[in-house]
Amino acid sequence: MEQSFLAYLRGRTRQLPQVAVGIGDDAAVIDWPGSVSSDQPQLRQVACTDQILDGVDFRSEEQSLSDIGFKAMAINLSDIAAMGATPSSALVTLALPAENATEIAGEVYEGILEAAQKYQVAIAGGDLSTYDGPLSISITILGWTEQPWLRTGAEEGDALFVTGALGGSLLGRHLRPEPRVELAAKLKQTVNVHAAIDVSDGFSLDLDRMLAASRMGAELELETLPISEAAHQFAEKSGRTPLEHAWSDGEDFELIFCVAPEEAAIIESTDWGVPVTRVGKVVGRTGLWKRVATSKFERVFPQGFVHGETDVAAAN
Amino acid sequence: MEQSFLAYLRGRTRQLPQVAVGIGDDAAVIDWPGSVSSDQPQLRQVACTDQILDGVDFRSEEQSLSDIGFKAMAINLSDIAAMGATPSSALVTLALPAENATEIAGEVYEGILEAAQKYQVAIAGGDLSTYDGPLSISITILGWTEQPWLRTGAEEGDALFVTGALGGSLLGRHLRPEPRVELAAKLKQTVNVHAAIDVSDGFSLDLDRMLAASRMGAELELETLPISEAAHQFAEKSGRTPLEHAWSDGEDFELIFCVAPEEAAIIESTDWGVPVTRVGKVVGRTGLWKRVATSKFERVFPQGFVHGETDVAAAN
Repeated sequence: MEQSFLAYLRGRTRQLPQVAVGIGDDAAVIDWPGSVSSDQPQLRQVACTDQILDGVDFRSEEQSLSDIGFKAMAINLSDIAAMGATPSSALVTLALPAENATEIAGEVYEGILEAAQKYQVAIAGGDLSTYDGPLSISITILGWTEQPWLRTGAEEGDALFVTGALGGSLLGRHLRPEPRVELAAKLKQTVNVHAAIDVSDGFSLDLDRMLAASRMGAELELETLPISEAAHQFAEKSGRTPLEHAWSDGEDFELIFCVAPEEAAIIESTDWGVPVTRVGKVVGRTGLWKRVATSKFERVFPQGFVHGETDVAAAN
Repeated sequence: MEQSFLAYLRGRTRQLPQVAVGIGDDAAVIDWPGSVSSDQPQLRQVACTDQILDGVDFRSEEQSLSDIGFKAMAINLSDIAAMGATPSSALVTLALPAENATEIAGEVYEGILEAAQKYQVAIAGGDLSTYDGPLSISITILGWTEQPWLRTGAEEGDALFVTGALGGSLLGRHLRPEPRVELAAKLKQTVNVHAAIDVSDGFSLDLDRMLAASRMGAELELETLPISEAAHQFAEKSGRTPLEHAWSDGEDFELIFCVAPEEAAIIESTDWGVPVTRVGKVVGRTGLWKRVATSKFERVFPQGFVHGETDVAAAN
């Protein structure tokens, strides 16, 4: 239900001037009185929130609670990184099964505090309740940036990049996922990113979302797509190809972004500490297109995890 | 478990410079780079988060979902008002029972949007999930102020005030509770509030929390305590006195605050649109003391709703 309900909400939500970017990007951009009129370079608030629920987003009987706590932070930090923002503080809300509540809270917080320390995020507050229901972790992260990266900024001709390697996260390599907070900060100092999104529901699905928000499409060189070792391993038993896993597996927590073509060489010649791979270019005709010959492209369709549906599903 | 776990968390949470006030006040106060060093009057971020759960904080089969949505906003707005801050935007997270999820979300959002419009708060974003569990509403509200009211600022000799009338909220008069957002803004323009807290768990319990944070106590004129009509009605069948209800009933969403004694007359001579009643003074000896003769006081003990315990309970 999420996409259609969000569309309804966008219609119902009155746009007040303090929210520059609301529902529909990785995070909200919020201004406050004085922050816009100041002579100083203007820092803008970025805020995002994500909850994960036992039985839906994780299984507490199969995973360590500390891993789950870490991941709840990482999901939100990835959204902040996708806005080109620096995370500052977190508000943490737990709903705990009444049985063993204190023990569960303690273990979940181990992972939360580990992520907080690693990414220099202060736990500013939160809420704790016990109830007759499954473990739920809801985290809000606040950050700041002078110039947020939005999904809407992709321009025709932009070079498209993706960080890290894609696919296979279901194999469990993402017990301690690495949100690209540091890389986003480095990119920010070096180039002018036009648009960005993080890979939470699948590379092709999230790429398509970013391009749709920009009213653009992309021509992709699929043979350049960075495929993770885990995607290769997974393919041996899944009956799908490594490329299919890279194309559609969720929870990669990598960044997709685009820059003007003249900045592509700077990115390709810099050592970022993690792979940053050029995978195609932004074009004016909408949709995703893969190159099949020197100047021939075929339409390909995004696939990934669509919230509210029961399983991996096509989005278009 | 909440109080003891919060104490553990305060110990474990590394204090980073960006969080001026963290766990333990009504809301967090967060600074960001540049906001402290600016020459301009410094606006500071205030953030709070509260969740309410079906079966714990409300009963969806007995209350309208729209009332519940409104109340989820009001609880957080009351915390923002207790910091002397102006609310700006909200992040709304719902965990919805899979059955009728869209219908439930729509009704809850009716109340949320009504509160958002009434208090000029923008819905900046949020998260929606369906699961096999009870309805859960978790809201983060962001606001700002130049000078937050903290629980720690009460000074010996301060005059103590409470807004509105106390007690009886369990009778249901608080289907649409009125957080004192507007009153807080007016007070801010007129006097220098030293410390404040909102009444969420009971007047005496929250007063005691504020004074304990300030390492102070209070001498109270209990006959001046403003008792609500609902507390009188409730007393007719509860076997307790109206004063007992005013003393200990939770969810009043009124403000307790204190100012220097020389500012008390300004408050008492101003028409605030709602009652603002002087109920005692801050003293150096800790604990709550009620006047029983011209210069004789007896110790009284805070009572109210203690989270994590099963029912109304003494806190000391």
